[in-house]
Amino acid sequence: MLKDAVRTKTYQNVIYQNTFLIKNKVVLDVGAGTGILSLFCAKAGAKHVYAVECSQMGDMAKEIVEANKLSHVITVLKGKVEDITLPVTHVDVIISEWMGYFLLFENMLDTVLYARDKWLVESGVVLPDRASLYLTAIEDADYKDDKVEFWKNVYGFDMSCIRKQTMMEPLVDTVDEHQIVTNTQLLKTMDISKMASGDVSFTAPFKLVAERNDYIHALVAYFDVSFTKCHKLMGFSTGPRSRATHWKQTVLYLEDVLTICKGEAIVGSMTVAPNKTNPRDVDIILKYFLNGLHCQVSRTQQYKMR
Amino acid sequence: MLKDAVRTKTYQNVIYQNTFLIKNKVVLDVGAGTGILSLFCAKAGAKHVYAVECSQMGDMAKEIVEANKLSHVITVLKGKVEDITLPVTHVDVIISEWMGYFLLFENMLDTVLYARDKWLVESGVVLPDRASLYLTAIEDADYKDDKVEFWKNVYGFDMSCIRKQTMMEPLVDTVDEHQIVTNTQLLKTMDISKMASGDVSFTAPFKLVAERNDYIHALVAYFDVSFTKCHKLMGFSTGPRSRATHWKQTVLYLEDVLTICKGEAIVGSMTVAPNKTNPRDVDIILKYFLNGLHCQVSRTQQYKMR
Repeated sequence: MLKDAVRTKTYQNVIYQNTFLIKNKVVLDVGAGTGILSLFCAKAGAKHVYAVECSQMGDMAKEIVEANKLSHVITVLKGKVEDITLPVTHVDVIISEWMGYFLLFENMLDTVLYARDKWLVESGVVLPDRASLYLTAIEDADYKDDKVEFWKNVYGFDMSCIRKQTMMEPLVDTVDEHQIVTNTQLLKTMDISKMASGDVSFTAPFKLVAERNDYIHALVAYFDVSFTKCHKLMGFSTGPRSRATHWKQTVLYLEDVLTICKGEAIVGSMTVAPNKTNPRDVDIILKYFLNGLHCQVSRTQQYKMR
Repeated sequence: MLKDAVRTKTYQNVIYQNTFLIKNKVVLDVGAGTGILSLFCAKAGAKHVYAVECSQMGDMAKEIVEANKLSHVITVLKGKVEDITLPVTHVDVIISEWMGYFLLFENMLDTVLYARDKWLVESGVVLPDRASLYLTAIEDADYKDDKVEFWKNVYGFDMSCIRKQTMMEPLVDTVDEHQIVTNTQLLKTMDISKMASGDVSFTAPFKLVAERNDYIHALVAYFDVSFTKCHKLMGFSTGPRSRATHWKQTVLYLEDVLTICKGEAIVGSMTVAPNKTNPRDVDIILKYFLNGLHCQVSRTQQYKMR
């Protein structure tokens, strides 16, 4: 993950170029991993950084902090944010790289919001503080054949039941910008400093207008995040027109191949919610409707990220 | 995994081109997955096939067998080979695609041997019945820098403790044949139809002679499997000179960069054993020695596949 330069460099720039946000502040790093964000904050003059990490990586983070002679500034706490006892009652800044595939997969945002409500001072800063989810539509004949239709005839055998399951699993993969057929629709913007925990569940309408005559095999979701409290707005996008990140994009294959003419629109809605049984999974319901010259479709599809 | 054409086509050819091994025989498919090997055997005229699969995929395999109208020939048993009750006391053939990374990772071979000893008739056939592990040495400056040395300076911080851990984890990756600097040494051949369970632990000596002046950054292990009971020998290799498979190769980075001259030899031994705590993991101890014109090294390194 550290090797995702878009991600790590953005955080580094946010911190090093906006030391006014960090200097002499008490910082909480939620899901610290190797502790890289805590190290950045220490270098930027934080009064103290609490780095919370529940995985085995917490032990590594402790070693790394020591190796870099920053134990007097950074305290690594190995455990779940929901379980640990912070040595302070309040923090000035919460920093976290909580974003999962499709923004919400693995649902670490809830943990950030929990930490915010428990420890962040009134005027405190959350880094990043804005995340938006977008939707567009792509032509993807080759890959859909390879990844989905493949199962209809596997070495002469019918494995359609696997095709059915594959269709329900959003695919995390890199989309070429030339595959994009329509405009991009903003689905949802989240203000991490204000939103309620329940706001990770939502239904958003969309209208995707074709910019050329083409086929549409899939809708594609991606997100961007912003640090609005910086001197000037900073952030990054995980969209197909931006430099690739490890988040890639999230491809939702459509049951039907849509034949669309320039100017025609796919309208519909996307409902997103954590799975009730396993809240780290994400349930997605896609309703879409096209009444075009060559293609009339009205359909509901369910997906599950797990 | 079905999309690994080398793998699946080899099994298909073995079965379809050697129906004498399968026709009117009772077959046990160990770790059947989607059931593809069982389907091949059914088509080849097996009397009956028992397909054992312990994961959720077992349910899919049942659906697939029904969809292909082969329920009268194939019985899918969802469960562990060690736990299930077979409706028959003996089988004529055991077929399995049990090979893991580095051949032995995840140790499904033990399950095949268990099934062999419990159910296979005296003159029964195991497919495949031979597996060999090989070792060679490669130049890999770029990747070693990227994957290992990276941790020495991560955005200005010392994360050498992660480098140390990374060094101990064999890397499953594709090696270009032009990176190969030495001959290839056969480490171990296993006869699946005869070997004892304990034979998956072994120490094998090696001698790797440089075929040109170069640097050596890593030793590389790979395996091949053979079906010796076929009309003519069939099988496939996962080596860097063969068509790529999902097994790729297994790269063991060396602590030192070795400077080697044509004709000089790295001699040593490799000890391989299932991890005592978690037998699905593999412990590897590599001892190597080079007394060259430009480089004298004698070292022991430990690795763990997990």
